[in-house]
Amino acid sequence: METALAVARQGVRGANPLVGAVIIDADGTVLAIGRHLGAGTPHAEADAINSLRGTRRDLSAATMVVTLEPCNHQGRTSPCSQAIIEAGIGNVVYAVDDPHAPAAGGGEKLRREGINVRSGLMADQALELNRQWFAAVRAGRPFVTARLAQTVDSRIAAADGTSQWITSAESREDSHKLRARVDAIVVGTGTIFGDNPRLTARDADGGDAGHQPLRVVMGLRDVPGDAAVRLRTAPGFLQLHTHDPAVVVHELHSRGVGHLMIEGGSKVSAAFLAAGLVDELIVYLAPTLLGSGIPALNDLGIGTLADAQQWEWDDTTSGPVERLGPDLKLTLMPARQPATNARAGSTAAHTTTEGRE
Amino acid sequence: METALAVARQGVRGANPLVGAVIIDADGTVLAIGRHLGAGTPHAEADAINSLRGTRRDLSAATMVVTLEPCNHQGRTSPCSQAIIEAGIGNVVYAVDDPHAPAAGGGEKLRREGINVRSGLMADQALELNRQWFAAVRAGRPFVTARLAQTVDSRIAAADGTSQWITSAESREDSHKLRARVDAIVVGTGTIFGDNPRLTARDADGGDAGHQPLRVVMGLRDVPGDAAVRLRTAPGFLQLHTHDPAVVVHELHSRGVGHLMIEGGSKVSAAFLAAGLVDELIVYLAPTLLGSGIPALNDLGIGTLADAQQWEWDDTTSGPVERLGPDLKLTLMPARQPATNARAGSTAAHTTTEGRE
Repeated sequence: METALAVARQGVRGANPLVGAVIIDADGTVLAIGRHLGAGTPHAEADAINSLRGTRRDLSAATMVVTLEPCNHQGRTSPCSQAIIEAGIGNVVYAVDDPHAPAAGGGEKLRREGINVRSGLMADQALELNRQWFAAVRAGRPFVTARLAQTVDSRIAAADGTSQWITSAESREDSHKLRARVDAIVVGTGTIFGDNPRLTARDADGGDAGHQPLRVVMGLRDVPGDAAVRLRTAPGFLQLHTHDPAVVVHELHSRGVGHLMIEGGSKVSAAFLAAGLVDELIVYLAPTLLGSGIPALNDLGIGTLADAQQWEWDDTTSGPVERLGPDLKLTLMPARQPATNARAGSTAAHTTTEGRE
Repeated sequence: METALAVARQGVRGANPLVGAVIIDADGTVLAIGRHLGAGTPHAEADAINSLRGTRRDLSAATMVVTLEPCNHQGRTSPCSQAIIEAGIGNVVYAVDDPHAPAAGGGEKLRREGINVRSGLMADQALELNRQWFAAVRAGRPFVTARLAQTVDSRIAAADGTSQWITSAESREDSHKLRARVDAIVVGTGTIFGDNPRLTARDADGGDAGHQPLRVVMGLRDVPGDAAVRLRTAPGFLQLHTHDPAVVVHELHSRGVGHLMIEGGSKVSAAFLAAGLVDELIVYLAPTLLGSGIPALNDLGIGTLADAQQWEWDDTTSGPVERLGPDLKLTLMPARQPATNARAGSTAAHTTTEGRE
């Protein structure tokens, strides 16, 4: 299971959790390793089984060790429970139950087929690895990524409003890859009137990527009929006449959005952050300074340092810091919360009076 | 020389340049490697020679390859030219002349002693490695490090002014190590009246470090008689009644300060940055968000994105990103300037209209 967890960390966060799977034989020898690399790609169990394809090995004494209950759901990929049954694997050990209603029940189905199923092994670590994903699923909302593209002094535009481009071509290309992974992008009306973005996912050549996100604008001002965001690119455009992030996530969840990316501006980013509705924060940091201009974030309603939002660097995949041309890409997730308390109350350690600077 | 340059990069920037030295025998076999690890520690040449101590080897056919002209100057350490002569090394190859008047002339002295001296090998790379140090020496001013301790959204205090502590204990300890390396620290009167800091360098236990910087306050308001910064710790306290960073660096240079650290607040940091008087920027980045409060930098006089200050991550030593407990430490240096132009004019590539976001 430790191997499966380590493999899971190599994935990318989004609509699906990070999952790793290992098939071992009766002696504990590893026969196959599988990982999940993001929505639309094979699940970890299927990836592991696929790598054994053609070996015609008898797997009745083998065990599938996986960090999450195998899914029982025909989505963009086939149910993993079915794949395990067809592969003839005799034993399954998984860490935690799948909380996602349409996918749950895989464990039960495997048992009915006579497979020896155990669960709960290293459950704490498996829950921890995907704690924001579990929180989103339990709350019945999409997994939310917020993206900032800023200077070292956290400006997203200069004093005269110029903002193209704060970050490098490499960062923008990476940002387009992110767009091609998510189900929907949200910006505010201010961004539409200021920048008139298309919000499509484009490849390095500027052509449209294969998968396009739903383009969502939130805010009260009507998006003009000739706005670039209204382009006829599937899956289309949606305006939500609200300033409330909770309304946006509810509405998009009901439309089947599993992974949502917030692209700004400062007000929209701050609204989602202040509401505690951001599961992953990606910061493209350009090695530049402006000293003035538009800050990346508006007021979060925080009056004193003890109430600062606590985050932590996300150590999954390529680590929390990636070099993109001249820029850094930083990835953060909300800090673990103390047992019973909200995040705002968790910072007492930062306000000790252990001596003045 | 490539090895010597690589070794040089392992040092730390400051009053002295990054220097590496390699002693090779007549066949090109490496006999010793030396590096300089910061002011007050042995120079690279001495470090290399020291590592051969006790071998009693005849070095008359050997060559000292060093990235900077060996110094001819009794400072905190003995002259390297003398050490090379005493070691009996027959040949010296160095990359660039030492521009620092009191230390220069080492090459000439070695020639007079009958040593075969060549210079200019990989001079461009050696100049590049220390370009900010050369600029500071030529301008007759200290090497200037600016230090920021900020949230991801670049705040150094919350809306109510609370600022202790933005960064972690690990970052603060590192910051005290920096203080113990520099000759002087500058803050503004605002910091004195707001935080009443001692500005001493302290070790992990809170005791005074062995080497203490001069504590300098710039600004017009008189520092109160009972301010903590007036503590009787060598080498003492100095107020400069000015808002002009050029006056500060001139005055401190004349007092023998080789390495100056700017510790803020926002106005003082911005003044040095706007004047182009920062050679190294160190950012302690806490994984927190405030959304409001005091920004790390005041206005830099930049109106539009094309005039943004361009920096680059400094790839020396441990790399531009270091993990300090929960925080990141980022190290930047001013970007290379285009041939004849000031930095402000160098950003045309960032303002192309190659397509809207």
